[in-house]
Amino acid sequence: MKKLFALALLALLGSAQANDPLQKVRQFRQTHEHELLTEFEQLVAIPNVAADTANLRRTAGFIQEMMQRRGIKTQLLAAPTAGVPPVVFGEVRTPGATRTVIFYAHYDGQPVNPAQWREGLSPFKPTLATGPLDRGGQLATRPAPGQPLSPDWRLYARSASDDKAGVMTILTGYQALVASKLKPKVNIKFFFEGEEERGSPHLAEILARHKALLASDVWVICDGPVHQSGRKQVVFGARGDVNMSLKVYGPRRPLHSGHYGNWVPNPAMELSRLLASMTDSTGRVRVAGFYDDVTPLTPAEKTALAQVPNLDKTIQQELGFARPYGTGQSLVELLNQPSLNINGMQSANVGAQAANVIPTVATAVLDLRLVPGNDAQRQVQKVIRHIERQGYHVTRDEPTDAERAQFPRLVRVQPETGYNAQRTRLDLPIARQVVAAVQTTTPDRVVLLPTMGGSLPLYVFEQQLQAQTITVPVANYDNNQHAENENIRLGNLWDGIETMAAIMLLK
Amino acid sequence: MKKLFALALLALLGSAQANDPLQKVRQFRQTHEHELLTEFEQLVAIPNVAADTANLRRTAGFIQEMMQRRGIKTQLLAAPTAGVPPVVFGEVRTPGATRTVIFYAHYDGQPVNPAQWREGLSPFKPTLATGPLDRGGQLATRPAPGQPLSPDWRLYARSASDDKAGVMTILTGYQALVASKLKPKVNIKFFFEGEEERGSPHLAEILARHKALLASDVWVICDGPVHQSGRKQVVFGARGDVNMSLKVYGPRRPLHSGHYGNWVPNPAMELSRLLASMTDSTGRVRVAGFYDDVTPLTPAEKTALAQVPNLDKTIQQELGFARPYGTGQSLVELLNQPSLNINGMQSANVGAQAANVIPTVATAVLDLRLVPGNDAQRQVQKVIRHIERQGYHVTRDEPTDAERAQFPRLVRVQPETGYNAQRTRLDLPIARQVVAAVQTTTPDRVVLLPTMGGSLPLYVFEQQLQAQTITVPVANYDNNQHAENENIRLGNLWDGIETMAAIMLLK
Repeated sequence: MKKLFALALLALLGSAQANDPLQKVRQFRQTHEHELLTEFEQLVAIPNVAADTANLRRTAGFIQEMMQRRGIKTQLLAAPTAGVPPVVFGEVRTPGATRTVIFYAHYDGQPVNPAQWREGLSPFKPTLATGPLDRGGQLATRPAPGQPLSPDWRLYARSASDDKAGVMTILTGYQALVASKLKPKVNIKFFFEGEEERGSPHLAEILARHKALLASDVWVICDGPVHQSGRKQVVFGARGDVNMSLKVYGPRRPLHSGHYGNWVPNPAMELSRLLASMTDSTGRVRVAGFYDDVTPLTPAEKTALAQVPNLDKTIQQELGFARPYGTGQSLVELLNQPSLNINGMQSANVGAQAANVIPTVATAVLDLRLVPGNDAQRQVQKVIRHIERQGYHVTRDEPTDAERAQFPRLVRVQPETGYNAQRTRLDLPIARQVVAAVQTTTPDRVVLLPTMGGSLPLYVFEQQLQAQTITVPVANYDNNQHAENENIRLGNLWDGIETMAAIMLLK
Repeated sequence: MKKLFALALLALLGSAQANDPLQKVRQFRQTHEHELLTEFEQLVAIPNVAADTANLRRTAGFIQEMMQRRGIKTQLLAAPTAGVPPVVFGEVRTPGATRTVIFYAHYDGQPVNPAQWREGLSPFKPTLATGPLDRGGQLATRPAPGQPLSPDWRLYARSASDDKAGVMTILTGYQALVASKLKPKVNIKFFFEGEEERGSPHLAEILARHKALLASDVWVICDGPVHQSGRKQVVFGARGDVNMSLKVYGPRRPLHSGHYGNWVPNPAMELSRLLASMTDSTGRVRVAGFYDDVTPLTPAEKTALAQVPNLDKTIQQELGFARPYGTGQSLVELLNQPSLNINGMQSANVGAQAANVIPTVATAVLDLRLVPGNDAQRQVQKVIRHIERQGYHVTRDEPTDAERAQFPRLVRVQPETGYNAQRTRLDLPIARQVVAAVQTTTPDRVVLLPTMGGSLPLYVFEQQLQAQTITVPVANYDNNQHAENENIRLGNLWDGIETMAAIMLLK
């Protein structure tokens, strides 16, 4: 009796269990999950950091094999610039279909520092654990084939979440449909980029070169995490992003801190003073004009934001800090503002290698997140002007002897290209259809987010192709994306397959 | 005619050329410089960082062999605490001598980060160069035996200057006297420590345990650089030193800077703000009471300071910075103040490994230099109080979950033991005699420095043995002591042998 009631409730809420096609997709996954996990482990075992072009090409080749296994016609789209990791493109035409959905994910990953990974883990040696290792999970070996895999297990590896999970769920969503003899209702295209974590510097030229090939009604971007509550979410935009590195100069050679301390300027101290000048104690950026050109949210976006479940207190407790930045705003409200973050900083050594020296240089890497209205290079220029106002002479190269002699405060600033933010309208018909498709896969109400905090080169699609983009993430929120110990929860991988398949069944 | 005049002038100035015993010492060195360099290369090739106790013991053993080769009776003085690198002690009695001079150097070195050393160099692979590598010197192989070695060549290795040069010049000064059939006029003792760069944490207990054995009229400390002008110097004191590390906490795991930036506090930014609060833009320390307990200089010390040659402009140009800290004081004036230096700082990564993250922690190592009147632990407490005044909760261990939940600003502070400053009176008779002895080795006026900027555990000798200490350095000032690319100029090694021999001839 109880069971029947529960089933009825589920059917009412979202009809996931009642949806025949998706049940077949689930059955396919359940029957094949060991093989799928093996294939995914092979995919994440190939190193994919920006500098390693040989392995990025191996990754692209492996993805082509995955597509061929699934009967997808594939080709590599090279950038006009030499040495750029190619886009892996694929296409499936559906007879009679009038619309085309193009699925995007990226196969490159963030840089790694293997020394920072937890003992027993290595960025490109995928490793299973019974749960999150920082909260009780244990390293584990896979159950024998035929034994079920717990959805709460994690696979640890660089890009397990960001964003090889995107590649895997898109391709396997399609595979499950075909294996279940379910016909997609739309033409499907696949677009897997290899430079996203570098800021997609060649995406625009690739899009421009292949406009006809890439024609579509909507780009579905599979990247980023689902909501912290575990609920699926559909995201209508992303912040832009641009990185810049700052290098402050001290003496030409490292000096004994006793024989010269108090007299020779210490670049670590000067960099600290410079960075500290950039924000106040609430994290608000003090760079002049930093918030000036932000486009206000529409009423529909404000409403959507208000409906996003607020788990701030829970997340804060889990992350172990007592007071968030801001003056009482929620996480999602603050993500609709531009930000200035220190990604890392270094001067000489700490720990066992620390020595009593005045360092020669001190370096920090900043990332600036952008919201609609901001322009990446304009934002960089505001920061540079701020640095100059602190008395610095800004150089693009190593300072010359003459510059060292002339300027008491010397900093080398190297901005990257970056890209701007983008936001798709919430009331766009195709957007509503994608949301409805995702809703068929889950009894829980799908979270609609006007913008995600992370960045995706959505702006480039809009600019080059006048394309509409909608982001449908699959990864668990606690995936250590971008950092050491990146991981994916297996249940998120499996759920993602259903999500992608559902979108392919869009009429 | 001109030559005769020059010789007469030299004789007047310092009589180095006219001093027969020292000419013999020089001839001995000239005849044996290849063998001596080989022995010194073997000495510096043995790793000597604090954690590597096995190699520190090998170093001590090698020094004992050097002493045995020179006919010096030697023994190891162990600390009561287990696992401490032993002191290498030696003794030579001179029949009829009424006074005893004990020579001190240390055989341990500062930590190394081999990756930071220049290409072609490695901390424990001694390498010759034709001059300073940062100013035109080239890596070089040694001329054939019998060919003279240029005094301007450098030997690159950790501790080549600091302070295996001290061990080498002391032992070889004695060797040259004996080989030249010159009799020392005083009893000579040798004391080579193995923990100086760690702050000599067990020196006091070793001194206390061997008071009788270590009785002397004066300790001659051979450590540190000669004056920047190249002139020899005698130093009457050293600053004290104590290190402390600060670790500021952010979120428990590293976070994607897009999805959490603006909301989760960034520990690199907070550490920057904390460090920036500690000094003003002239480098003056803003920690309350930091300068309060400084003992003023005596009139004699002020006079000596005023006579130190001022090469500040030259050094500044060479080091490549446009404005020193301070408000117009000279380098030697500022070295008579306590200081607060950032030895190093780090948070996440920079350069190729930088990722778009909010780091979990940010760390800095400070060293506080102390002058007479300061107490190491009192100075540390002032800094801790300053940190607390910036709103921080200070812990000694990793913060607990409860501390993370309660305190918005959390820092772990780990102070080391350190030691205080010491200064010997300039008008002490034995001090005057040592100065006179050093003056016999050079036509240039010896520089008298009331205190060096660097630190030596002189305070411990005074406290434990009521001993008088005088420091007679030998290394070139541009030796990269404590940092990567440490080196000694061969001419300084050779001059040091003569300096040490001259002191042994003290009546």
